[in-house]
Amino acid sequence: MVKAGIIGATGYAGEELCRILLGHPEAEIAAVSSVSFEGKPISEVYPSLRGIFDGVLTDEDSAIAAGDVVFASLPHGLSEPLAEKCLSAGKKFIDLGADFRLDDPADYTRWYGLEYQKPELHREQVYGLPELYREQIKGAALVGNPGCYPTSVALGLAPALRAGLIDGKTLIIDSKSGVTGAGRGLSQTTHYPDCNEAFSPYKIASHRHTPEIEQALSHLAGEKITVTFVPHLLPVNRGILSTMYASLKRDISAEELCTLYREAYAGEKFVRVLEPGQAANLKHVKYSNYCDISLHPDGRTRRLIVVSAIDNMVKGAAGQAVQNMNLLFHLPEDMGLGLVPPAF
Amino acid sequence: MVKAGIIGATGYAGEELCRILLGHPEAEIAAVSSVSFEGKPISEVYPSLRGIFDGVLTDEDSAIAAGDVVFASLPHGLSEPLAEKCLSAGKKFIDLGADFRLDDPADYTRWYGLEYQKPELHREQVYGLPELYREQIKGAALVGNPGCYPTSVALGLAPALRAGLIDGKTLIIDSKSGVTGAGRGLSQTTHYPDCNEAFSPYKIASHRHTPEIEQALSHLAGEKITVTFVPHLLPVNRGILSTMYASLKRDISAEELCTLYREAYAGEKFVRVLEPGQAANLKHVKYSNYCDISLHPDGRTRRLIVVSAIDNMVKGAAGQAVQNMNLLFHLPEDMGLGLVPPAF
Amino acid sequence: MVKAGIIGATGYAGEELCRILLGHPEAEIAAVSSVSFEGKPISEVYPSLRGIFDGVLTDEDSAIAAGDVVFASLPHGLSEPLAEKCLSAGKKFIDLGADFRLDDPADYTRWYGLEYQKPELHREQVYGLPELYREQIKGAALVGNPGCYPTSVALGLAPALRAGLIDGKTLIIDSKSGVTGAGRGLSQTTHYPDCNEAFSPYKIASHRHTPEIEQALSHLAGEKITVTFVPHLLPVNRGILSTMYASLKRDISAEELCTLYREAYAGEKFVRVLEPGQAANLKHVKYSNYCDISLHPDGRTRRLIVVSAIDNMVKGAAGQAVQNMNLLFHLPEDMGLGLVPPAF
Amino acid sequence: MVKAGIIGATGYAGEELCRILLGHPEAEIAAVSSVSFEGKPISEVYPSLRGIFDGVLTDEDSAIAAGDVVFASLPHGLSEPLAEKCLSAGKKFIDLGADFRLDDPADYTRWYGLEYQKPELHREQVYGLPELYREQIKGAALVGNPGCYPTSVALGLAPALRAGLIDGKTLIIDSKSGVTGAGRGLSQTTHYPDCNEAFSPYKIASHRHTPEIEQALSHLAGEKITVTFVPHLLPVNRGILSTMYASLKRDISAEELCTLYREAYAGEKFVRVLEPGQAANLKHVKYSNYCDISLHPDGRTRRLIVVSAIDNMVKGAAGQAVQNMNLLFHLPEDMGLGLVPPAF
Repeated sequence: MVKAGIIGATGYAGEELCRILLGHPEAEIAAVSSVSFEGKPISEVYPSLRGIFDGVLTDEDSAIAAGDVVFASLPHGLSEPLAEKCLSAGKKFIDLGADFRLDDPADYTRWYGLEYQKPELHREQVYGLPELYREQIKGAALVGNPGCYPTSVALGLAPALRAGLIDGKTLIIDSKSGVTGAGRGLSQTTHYPDCNEAFSPYKIASHRHTPEIEQALSHLAGEKITVTFVPHLLPVNRGILSTMYASLKRDISAEELCTLYREAYAGEKFVRVLEPGQAANLKHVKYSNYCDISLHPDGRTRRLIVVSAIDNMVKGAAGQAVQNMNLLFHLPEDMGLGLVPPAF
Repeated sequence: MVKAGIIGATGYAGEELCRILLGHPEAEIAAVSSVSFEGKPISEVYPSLRGIFDGVLTDEDSAIAAGDVVFASLPHGLSEPLAEKCLSAGKKFIDLGADFRLDDPADYTRWYGLEYQKPELHREQVYGLPELYREQIKGAALVGNPGCYPTSVALGLAPALRAGLIDGKTLIIDSKSGVTGAGRGLSQTTHYPDCNEAFSPYKIASHRHTPEIEQALSHLAGEKITVTFVPHLLPVNRGILSTMYASLKRDISAEELCTLYREAYAGEKFVRVLEPGQAANLKHVKYSNYCDISLHPDGRTRRLIVVSAIDNMVKGAAGQAVQNMNLLFHLPEDMGLGLVPPAF
Repeated sequence: MVKAGIIGATGYAGEELCRILLGHPEAEIAAVSSVSFEGKPISEVYPSLRGIFDGVLTDEDSAIAAGDVVFASLPHGLSEPLAEKCLSAGKKFIDLGADFRLDDPADYTRWYGLEYQKPELHREQVYGLPELYREQIKGAALVGNPGCYPTSVALGLAPALRAGLIDGKTLIIDSKSGVTGAGRGLSQTTHYPDCNEAFSPYKIASHRHTPEIEQALSHLAGEKITVTFVPHLLPVNRGILSTMYASLKRDISAEELCTLYREAYAGEKFVRVLEPGQAANLKHVKYSNYCDISLHPDGRTRRLIVVSAIDNMVKGAAGQAVQNMNLLFHLPEDMGLGLVPPAF
Repeated sequence: MVKAGIIGATGYAGEELCRILLGHPEAEIAAVSSVSFEGKPISEVYPSLRGIFDGVLTDEDSAIAAGDVVFASLPHGLSEPLAEKCLSAGKKFIDLGADFRLDDPADYTRWYGLEYQKPELHREQVYGLPELYREQIKGAALVGNPGCYPTSVALGLAPALRAGLIDGKTLIIDSKSGVTGAGRGLSQTTHYPDCNEAFSPYKIASHRHTPEIEQALSHLAGEKITVTFVPHLLPVNRGILSTMYASLKRDISAEELCTLYREAYAGEKFVRVLEPGQAANLKHVKYSNYCDISLHPDGRTRRLIVVSAIDNMVKGAAGQAVQNMNLLFHLPEDMGLGLVPPAF
């Protein structure tokens, strides 16, 4: 049994880690920590867990001590010392925050306003998107779990970019996220009467996931890619749907596109490429680790439209983190992740 | 492995049976049938199942032939011949419809406008609420799976009625159900713009679950009980919350009530009795087989208020059906039902 | 033109007052005040008002000085000094808070934990439910605008109580309110992911509107009435629906009930008594000053079930306050209140 | 008083016309017609109107006979004969459907699969977007009321296109619409449990509003413009938000953009250009005739992002139709349209 310590367990990603790990046959939750609720059972914070997991919230060091793997879900800027402690103690560290995703320290500084304190640590980090970086993850100890938006975008565009199908300079990404993406913290924007029956973009062309998206896409395309990325807040609890637009370099049919994507994702359990004529819907992936992708060439404007849908808290956070854990510990990659998306 | 045939698999309860059985370690879906979609893969009707379960929908006889147990989820009046076929073939039959719940044929006739065609069949039926009728279920072949409202009510009131705490003549039940309770069929009432940002009672004091509720409560109380039952349509997808009111025969504290209920439900994994001061919320049981119960004595009016919450599609339908299947086949009762309710 | 000063204008009731008064042909907003946002235009707090009403938020004294009538929408305990200032200055005062609703100081102390500081002031207060206290309101200067729940309950039960139809000792009130009822302040309960797809009762048999309900019902019945009152939080923005239960003292048909209620409310523009067989729905009164009432005798248990629906922010707060203002200033009672409820 | 006849009054746009005209001081509803509900009061179909407007639904000819102006809200292909009748009878005709919006018959045939039967009639048609075609509307008798998406797009892009700021070839329009946009008819897509907590694009790059968008934009730009247009179904009742992307021909600051737009829309009551840094939200225009526009230059990619929000049923349908009626009858353009958007 892999023992897992969860730091920041009372955030939304932390709760989802608990929910998923409780159903994992080869892992167990060894400790959960929280600064705000230390000393209380986690089921007091999340009554859904009552009687199922009443573990008492402890502190970071206890979580590190108890785990073979440590998951951290914290605001940016707090994970470096935790990672260092874990690595020195021979433990694996999976960071669900933003501190180990960006390769270029300048990107981190420009978008997050902080500097890497321990640059050497970042040389060991691996970007934890298994469908794209599986082999590197297997041998790693320090994983930067991808952001929710970048996961939906990189999976949606990877085959097209690798195949040189689209012009990277024309990429526009219009994403819509459920409200859990904003986390458990209170704000006017996520106050029910403000958020319900509302819809609006936010952080227009300035969201911090932008450099992470560009890093992933540039790597796939083999050239520097700059995108326009506009996220919107969607009045649903969960899910991200990204609608992506780019000019096609050549004509291609929906059928050919489908074949290209299916070959690219052959053997990938968690990626479902839809039939021509179908459209991805975040409803169909909710509560699961799946990423649905649909492909729509627009002959009139010679553009490709790709739509991808994930559950922001599963494939976009905790589910992908468990997928990474499975890789790190040489378990079947989908173990504990057989979450069937409910139809409603 | 128990082989399951599902008749009426494209209704909401059928879909939930699929979702749950796909994660059951000792059962497998042997066949799914549907009159409306015969010949198509079920994942075409429920794209959430794409790539997970693409079984082709067949007819009733094939579903019966393939299963050790047959689940039927059909409008009332259609299950008797299916039950008969199953029993003659030595198979178990679990009916998620209303045809095998009522002991008194007169009740069935009065509320459903039909007559039992095969009265002898109904002598074998067992009411499939495991927390109350576990032993009878174990030896049965023909189970009437309870309605969603009656499940929430019977579990909520059982300990108080058995203890003779409340005056049955004063019982008032105010229930609220998510929209999946109305099923997959289209109607103006469940058209999104009509249903969203709306709230209303329906079938006031005339809902067909009334006699089933009264049968269960009368049995618990040891006397004939007649209730006022008013269901309401709630603009959420899933869940039932019942608020129940009755006059107390004696004063009792919240603490004593809690103790009484916890003793009554000791060992019952799927019933969670909340602490004094907490209130049941359908959010905390969504997508799971749990029933949460909270207890609120009102000293000013000497009444007891009981609040119970279930997921109408799981404990109120498909989850309870699987719980019954486990009992019928002497499997651990909670097998395949370790669905952790997500916090959001 | 009646000049209105609004104190606490950035609360939800304050915003609704603005929305309604902006369409009032004989009233104008003379000043709006807010402690939290003083100095800012109100349209910065409520961008819906941009370009329509950009009045700068000022302080309480300025609001009092500017108004012929002063509306205050403040937490309880803060309105007495404002009322006193207004009355000395010969202005009318309409309090949307709880400070001038309860006649018995002991009720205020028991339920709100405070004492009336100026008992003589309360002798002048009038309970501002026009359909029941119209004549008193016309001659008053100090109006306690009713709470949202009490409005729905008193209008729903008045004809039955006055006619001596029901047994007051058996009254049970199960109410459901949209989230704006909880106000603009942030809380975990009203955080979107906690509140959406959720449903739960709160302040069970202990809500502060209980004594106000009992005062109104006792007055109508001519005897002391004690009720069980359980409010629930409904995942919609607006609206209250109350389902009320009481034993009938005699048999009565739905038709007779309808006639009784229609006669009782003859000439009342804002009360709509539904036909037998119809059920009140909060959807049909949203954004308007209407109260819909439906009547359902339950012959099996000889109970009356009354369902009433209002918009908690209009008939339950700001709309009723404007109705009171019209009475105070001898304007047509429905002036500025011709808000047609949108169908969706 | 202008007498209005409404054909297709039980559709959503028809109901909104009633709601708005009931508050119009210089117009009255002379007749409402409906094929499906002829002979019933409209308040039976829309109980929100009970007691406010109980007009009995009649047939088309009666609606035409009764009106000085006739509004028709019908599926495409049905309006030509109605228009002809109205014009011969010297009445004004405002079509809320698609039959009088497209100037090029070939566009109508390509996108709607039908041919104009009376080409000469279409020579008289005027595109009823008052902010862009006010003078033509004033002198017209036959108005094609714009589609909801095209209204949001044309208003959002008009100043930029007229100023030659953006490259029309790069235009991408990602729109999101509330569910009332799909109308009152039942469908699986708009069944509550399918639609709630869901989000998906539909008719990707193939929606029938595309040629209408292109016609309006081409006219503004003075050159043929072809766009990629992708609509999405948003789980809210009302509102459209369009996020529009195009390459800038020159660098421009947010401030300069704001000034450009404010000058372009000076005097336009129903267009609100937001401050730099603010983002349009459909919540702020709900139930009103406003169009909010926010402007976001993306310096990194040298693109302009424009966000526009309207209420699809008001500025996107019935409100704009009344605005057109006011122009046709030389009434103040905003008469009856002072609907203040509620904050929640």
